[in-house]
Amino acid sequence: MPTGLWLIGARGSVAVTSVLGMLALRAGLTAPAGCVTELPAFAGTGLPGWDDLVVGGHDTAALPLLKKAEALADAGVVPARLVAALGAELTTVDSEVRPAPQASDQAAAAAAIQADLADFARRHGLDRTIVVNVASTEPAAVPHPAHADLDALRAALRSAEPVLPPSALYAYAALSAGCPYVDFTPSTGTRLPALTQLAEYQGLPYAGHDGKTGETLLKSVLAPMFAMRNLTVRSWSGVNLLGGGDGANLADPATNAAKAASKQRVLSETLGYRPEGDCRIEYVEDLGDFKAAWDLVTFSGFLGTKMRMEFTWHGCDSALAAPLVLDLARITAAAHRSGLRGPLPELAFFFKDPLDPRGEVPHGLAAQWHALESLADRLREAEEAR
Amino acid sequence: MPTGLWLIGARGSVAVTSVLGMLALRAGLTAPAGCVTELPAFAGTGLPGWDDLVVGGHDTAALPLLKKAEALADAGVVPARLVAALGAELTTVDSEVRPAPQASDQAAAAAAIQADLADFARRHGLDRTIVVNVASTEPAAVPHPAHADLDALRAALRSAEPVLPPSALYAYAALSAGCPYVDFTPSTGTRLPALTQLAEYQGLPYAGHDGKTGETLLKSVLAPMFAMRNLTVRSWSGVNLLGGGDGANLADPATNAAKAASKQRVLSETLGYRPEGDCRIEYVEDLGDFKAAWDLVTFSGFLGTKMRMEFTWHGCDSALAAPLVLDLARITAAAHRSGLRGPLPELAFFFKDPLDPRGEVPHGLAAQWHALESLADRLREAEEAR
Amino acid sequence: MPTGLWLIGARGSVAVTSVLGMLALRAGLTAPAGCVTELPAFAGTGLPGWDDLVVGGHDTAALPLLKKAEALADAGVVPARLVAALGAELTTVDSEVRPAPQASDQAAAAAAIQADLADFARRHGLDRTIVVNVASTEPAAVPHPAHADLDALRAALRSAEPVLPPSALYAYAALSAGCPYVDFTPSTGTRLPALTQLAEYQGLPYAGHDGKTGETLLKSVLAPMFAMRNLTVRSWSGVNLLGGGDGANLADPATNAAKAASKQRVLSETLGYRPEGDCRIEYVEDLGDFKAAWDLVTFSGFLGTKMRMEFTWHGCDSALAAPLVLDLARITAAAHRSGLRGPLPELAFFFKDPLDPRGEVPHGLAAQWHALESLADRLREAEEAR
Amino acid sequence: MPTGLWLIGARGSVAVTSVLGMLALRAGLTAPAGCVTELPAFAGTGLPGWDDLVVGGHDTAALPLLKKAEALADAGVVPARLVAALGAELTTVDSEVRPAPQASDQAAAAAAIQADLADFARRHGLDRTIVVNVASTEPAAVPHPAHADLDALRAALRSAEPVLPPSALYAYAALSAGCPYVDFTPSTGTRLPALTQLAEYQGLPYAGHDGKTGETLLKSVLAPMFAMRNLTVRSWSGVNLLGGGDGANLADPATNAAKAASKQRVLSETLGYRPEGDCRIEYVEDLGDFKAAWDLVTFSGFLGTKMRMEFTWHGCDSALAAPLVLDLARITAAAHRSGLRGPLPELAFFFKDPLDPRGEVPHGLAAQWHALESLADRLREAEEAR
Repeated sequence: MPTGLWLIGARGSVAVTSVLGMLALRAGLTAPAGCVTELPAFAGTGLPGWDDLVVGGHDTAALPLLKKAEALADAGVVPARLVAALGAELTTVDSEVRPAPQASDQAAAAAAIQADLADFARRHGLDRTIVVNVASTEPAAVPHPAHADLDALRAALRSAEPVLPPSALYAYAALSAGCPYVDFTPSTGTRLPALTQLAEYQGLPYAGHDGKTGETLLKSVLAPMFAMRNLTVRSWSGVNLLGGGDGANLADPATNAAKAASKQRVLSETLGYRPEGDCRIEYVEDLGDFKAAWDLVTFSGFLGTKMRMEFTWHGCDSALAAPLVLDLARITAAAHRSGLRGPLPELAFFFKDPLDPRGEVPHGLAAQWHALESLADRLREAEEAR
Repeated sequence: MPTGLWLIGARGSVAVTSVLGMLALRAGLTAPAGCVTELPAFAGTGLPGWDDLVVGGHDTAALPLLKKAEALADAGVVPARLVAALGAELTTVDSEVRPAPQASDQAAAAAAIQADLADFARRHGLDRTIVVNVASTEPAAVPHPAHADLDALRAALRSAEPVLPPSALYAYAALSAGCPYVDFTPSTGTRLPALTQLAEYQGLPYAGHDGKTGETLLKSVLAPMFAMRNLTVRSWSGVNLLGGGDGANLADPATNAAKAASKQRVLSETLGYRPEGDCRIEYVEDLGDFKAAWDLVTFSGFLGTKMRMEFTWHGCDSALAAPLVLDLARITAAAHRSGLRGPLPELAFFFKDPLDPRGEVPHGLAAQWHALESLADRLREAEEAR
Repeated sequence: MPTGLWLIGARGSVAVTSVLGMLALRAGLTAPAGCVTELPAFAGTGLPGWDDLVVGGHDTAALPLLKKAEALADAGVVPARLVAALGAELTTVDSEVRPAPQASDQAAAAAAIQADLADFARRHGLDRTIVVNVASTEPAAVPHPAHADLDALRAALRSAEPVLPPSALYAYAALSAGCPYVDFTPSTGTRLPALTQLAEYQGLPYAGHDGKTGETLLKSVLAPMFAMRNLTVRSWSGVNLLGGGDGANLADPATNAAKAASKQRVLSETLGYRPEGDCRIEYVEDLGDFKAAWDLVTFSGFLGTKMRMEFTWHGCDSALAAPLVLDLARITAAAHRSGLRGPLPELAFFFKDPLDPRGEVPHGLAAQWHALESLADRLREAEEAR
Repeated sequence: MPTGLWLIGARGSVAVTSVLGMLALRAGLTAPAGCVTELPAFAGTGLPGWDDLVVGGHDTAALPLLKKAEALADAGVVPARLVAALGAELTTVDSEVRPAPQASDQAAAAAAIQADLADFARRHGLDRTIVVNVASTEPAAVPHPAHADLDALRAALRSAEPVLPPSALYAYAALSAGCPYVDFTPSTGTRLPALTQLAEYQGLPYAGHDGKTGETLLKSVLAPMFAMRNLTVRSWSGVNLLGGGDGANLADPATNAAKAASKQRVLSETLGYRPEGDCRIEYVEDLGDFKAAWDLVTFSGFLGTKMRMEFTWHGCDSALAAPLVLDLARITAAAHRSGLRGPLPELAFFFKDPLDPRGEVPHGLAAQWHALESLADRLREAEEAR
């Protein structure tokens, strides 16, 4: 069951950590800590194995994967011994990374991406290729009338002026090439009516948005706790200190506002009201790939007594995100194989801002886990029915 | 549906906060924050209303409830305005608090307790009385052969030497008097084979142990989060700084050891292994009824990358415990009314160390909530079938 | 030695807490916790006693001091028993609070302020009056050519257009009336060349700026610790969550920027370099008069090993500021009495952004304390020489 | 000015980090971060340079320094590149480490230690050798009458039964051999009247006890801050989670009690009273050479308003201790060279539990720094007088 994993942003920290980890798992050099798909709930669900995955991708950066992996090892993100042991394998993956296409218009760029995907699939005899966006977060997309309709979009892509932000252009190309698309970032991706139509038309599954790796993960278990105990959350304020590639980007007020809003959404969804307080993102270069988040929650209990909790989270973003990228690729591959199409809201467990076409997606982590287990059950049944 | 709530330790902080809160709810002077039974899940389940509850109890202390409530107001635990408004009602409840019985042997003491309960029920025309233990935590019980069998116990109670610790003596008396028994403390209560036989024989429901109000509550959502994400918890160390009545008691090494062990149990039950680390209890008088808990969790993710989180919880024990005492009384009353008998493992949501007769009780809070919802559904069905 | 204390912003939280505290100290109803001038270092320095102080002030607000004090008691900032005991005394002080003057131009407004001060001094037979600004923080002043010269300023004040921000207008009026002026806020106050000339001409002492009550206080002991141990501070990031009157004001980006910069200055001054990181102020209404600050410090030690510390500070701004207001009034009164004139850099101990005319003021708290002790010694000598 | 540095416990984490750092500084491969003696205050004070130091020592362990350094690099305590670059130099130092002497009685053991020291000095042509104890913490010494008098001690050392704990036996041998002795641990060392007599008789300087590297360092700046602001500290509770070699040892209740007491002493000495609260040490193997300390301080300010602060310290013990070991060796060498004799209370800056023969040693860090600067001034004067 050879399965392609095509990474947009293939030379970034998350991508390289994912690739190194996949190679290490394949070689038996590490345990699958952090991989949700290795839990018993996923036994027998027809996921591609570590040996089945073939990785390629696009990136605007030129730094070879091996060099990037060495830099990650120096920063304490990945073990140096794995980089030393897997240099040849990293270089092999590196040979499958293509530069972002340069073209006269976006239609041509999309065609070039599709050609890269087709060539990749053909050369490796792949059953399917899952495209996952792990590139840097984009600014919010500039609205355009052609976003509303697939035919209009196809026409507009041939104009000189760009119509789609990069994440949506890659989504367009992926779906056009018959590849399921997963967006691990807060960027636009498939979130345009024209692209939803395209996925529908192609009969492809897709998923997103914005991998849930730290503060929001904690909120998704703590907010339900307050709700289940009928405690009134008065304020919830947080600050995220991020270094690394995405830190400077996310601390930019334009990008920040959208992200910060999506990070507070879990509160209103699980509590039923929006407590006071905001969630800030600050760039602190010294933290590198690690981030430090501090949250203060004030709440009141019986007879109005005021109480509070605080937490600090010291996480390594790449180490938290990378196994989820592999999980999403594997599950989406199995979903595609079993004939699922359209948005996959059952993957909300993985995302800060999950696709929620019918407004039914739960935001508490336990409920999201149940939804994910149900999906695993469906995949298992499909697998057993083969 | 007049329902008795009989509190062992009726003059303590938790009891007095419960009583004041119930009176304030009845008078419409406060909102039911912290009351789980006021969530929509409990609609139509036949719980006694705030007007239905009649409170009495036993205590060795003599300080009137009103005085205790004033002291709690001075300490910031309850609002002074409620104490001022409800002085007469507190004094009425006070008149129903009996001194702990003095008797020649434990059989006579039990008989005196039963007489107090019968008199209370008769005078108020109660349908049933729920006995809830909120007294100070006892040292671990001294084993005795008569604990193993009800007949042997009945005989032994007539000897001069005490056989049962107080919590178990009250449980014996309550069950003998036909009253369901709930233990909100880590003390022995019904956890002796002889008392299990007695509850069985009497056809009564019972529940316990050790109300879950702070650090363990947080563990019961955070540990499942690590498990669901397949992250390896390496160590989980905590310290609890407690003032107030139970602080000095719990910081005593003998009491502490049992309690600390029960506080780490949630980790092994939800993670499937026992991470390194302990949970300490220290007495800091200055904190009064508030407690401060700090936990450090070290964990490793993908490729072994080490990360950590910390949290601090500044809670008011009485304000967190009191609404749960009312919740437990109401649910146990409805369970009794609907004919349930034996242990109520569905109440694990409320306890650090839940009764678990068949080893099936979940320790993650979300799973415990589901079990509680199922119980509510059964109660609702029973109610609808009336 | 009757001494006036004239508060700009006399009906605000800090002012009312100061006044209530002074009255309570005078009546022997509280201990002088938080009052630096009650430490042994100030014995025999000729400070006015609690009985010597007579309080008045200006405010735009109309809420009586007693009502404000009751609101502070409800918020847990001051004890209700003191408000109850000192109602008459608060009302007496209230009768000395004047509305902010309405006038055709700022010259006339200044004259009205001077008349209020002169009337206050005459009626109470005061030796001197210290004017202390505790009003809300202003936006940064709009530059004006007349700020550079006293004569130009005097002329410009008669124009219809306002030339001075309120804090500077009060400083102008105070100095013109022969009153020492202390600015407890980050506002402009005396920080204009024209006002420095005026203070010089009048031979008056003055002091400021911005009372040091929380996070900056901690920085002023922690940063020197890192310096003395030759540890390299890599980043120092902080967030301040403030409710209360000044919170909304300070979280405003315009006000915030100036304040945040002054809060990081202690780092560069004591470390000798400016570590990465910023200091944010956020408004969280629920916190009321309390504030919560969290700081993360990353540092490296021997052989570059990376380490970190975090702290959280849960302080009550009014309770921290009020005794310092009294301290500053007492010390400035003694300084005036002993003939000191010009800026008082020895009061840097009290300020985030101390006046530092010769660039010699230390920013570490211990060094500031030594400077303050030296001032106390000079005052004692002057007193002994009388 | 060839100067010996003789380390008791030469193969432990602190010793090996010290040696590696000294070699790296000598080779210009690292900056002297964490070295107090590299601050401007020590310019011209006649300290031995990095090239002047020759290192040897005793240890019961056999693991070569290079292997230990590699293990420390794996644990993230020291950089692997330094270990790789300095392997030969580490091996050279290793050849100067002697096994702990086996002898029939302690007199013979002391003689063997003296012989090792003399041989070391002769072979390297050393001007002087400073002996520094960095071995694991001992249990409290068993009292013995011979501890009170040097002659009695000399006689008792010839009995079969051991009289001195190891740290004191090494101190006895060092002083007998004419070497100044510094104790970086909480063990007994020179703290016996007989050894004080010996140091006196030999005219040697000595210093100790217990290097101040984390929580106590913070207390020594924070407690004076509360005192200078006249804020009342109500409670100060702390927990230290330690892995590494000394963690298991210190968490032992016997060792722990003495250490914990010495860690709270700074509070009573700087505040003038002893606040409530204790300081716990717990062993958490997973933390390795790093430690995590959490402290909660509750305090009250003006009018009794209750406030609090918390801090967490994530430090690497070896990285914090090692440069201080080098500092102490260099300063003690210069003190010896300049003719100083007896205890060196001016080194209190470095210690949790400083020698304080006349009860005059300050416990606030700023005051300790002033005392250290004064010592530096004396050394500079002595150096200039040569």
